[in-house]
Amino acid sequence: MAPLEFWFEFASTYSYLSAARIGEIAQAAGVELRWRPFLLGPIFAAQGWQDSPFNLYPAKGRYMWRDMERLCEGYGLAFRRPSRFPRNGLLAARTALVALDGGFGGDFVRGVYHAEFAEDRDIGERREIARVLEGLGRDPDVVLEAALAPRNKDRLRTQTELAVKRGIFGAPSFVVGRELFWGNDRLGDAVAACALGT
Amino acid sequence: MAPLEFWFEFASTYSYLSAARIGEIAQAAGVELRWRPFLLGPIFAAQGWQDSPFNLYPAKGRYMWRDMERLCEGYGLAFRRPSRFPRNGLLAARTALVALDGGFGGDFVRGVYHAEFAEDRDIGERREIARVLEGLGRDPDVVLEAALAPRNKDRLRTQTELAVKRGIFGAPSFVVGRELFWGNDRLGDAVAACALGT
Repeated sequence: MAPLEFWFEFASTYSYLSAARIGEIAQAAGVELRWRPFLLGPIFAAQGWQDSPFNLYPAKGRYMWRDMERLCEGYGLAFRRPSRFPRNGLLAARTALVALDGGFGGDFVRGVYHAEFAEDRDIGERREIARVLEGLGRDPDVVLEAALAPRNKDRLRTQTELAVKRGIFGAPSFVVGRELFWGNDRLGDAVAACALGT
Repeated sequence: MAPLEFWFEFASTYSYLSAARIGEIAQAAGVELRWRPFLLGPIFAAQGWQDSPFNLYPAKGRYMWRDMERLCEGYGLAFRRPSRFPRNGLLAARTALVALDGGFGGDFVRGVYHAEFAEDRDIGERREIARVLEGLGRDPDVVLEAALAPRNKDRLRTQTELAVKRGIFGAPSFVVGRELFWGNDRLGDAVAACALGT
């Protein structure tokens, strides 16, 4: 059984859909899940995009918001369209690396996405990340100090470089062996690929 | 039961996947299917793209070709990566309108996609479209004369304008009432929406 790498960006709407579901799905399938936060910003910038494609291409953006509503309804997930999009996912991604080390990564990731897409909170703000950590019974100052340490910042940079090497160009993405799957719609296919041990 | 509008572009790889399957799926679900050929070129050009996004963004393109291989295998569809991409779908789209009028639209559409993505034929060439028509027992000269009539060219232009009004920005797309679904991955959701009569 191959492990399932889950590559996500906190600014990404469709990553929310996968992050909310993947823990239970992987567990039910008996698949080892590896959470891989990364930054889409540098990847988009290399493609010449200085903003989300959903803002750059308005018809695509209008569609995406309606699609999110429908999908969240189908999954039974809370959703409120954020008053600003995209949010800055940098601090959340740095903090996620620390949370994953500490064994509370899944809960932290789900908490941040919920704050962002169900409560319209600005997850780019330190106080909102602190709120999520407090809700998990963690000391925000301790976790955030580790998140902001130069070595941890470097780790996130390395992780984003690794995403590019994996051929990743959007989020969420799933990697199983040498196979890449892009988009929340491919979560099921990715899990199935784990059983094939690709 | 709301009808299912199927908007497709002959140059589009993912449209092949839907075109090959949608006839049987709609029939099994008891849904009225409306074939809607249109041109993505003008829509992409309005977004500033002079080529397929799969060529403009190479990582996305590499992914798409592998994804197509996997999906075709899963659906049991023949697939050969075309030696040139994208092909020009203009003549095929004009001819499809005539074929739909003549009651052999579905077969023509499937035939063109098969020539393009299973046999690597250049569907931008008149002789390849003629070949597909001959295979269906039609007189290519008669059909192509109708396809190239000014009124038919105008129809395709009008249809593409209608696609823009529907909020369509890519292919394949499905429209059910006021709901838009984008991508081969949403074919099932679109069919389900027909039953809701949205």
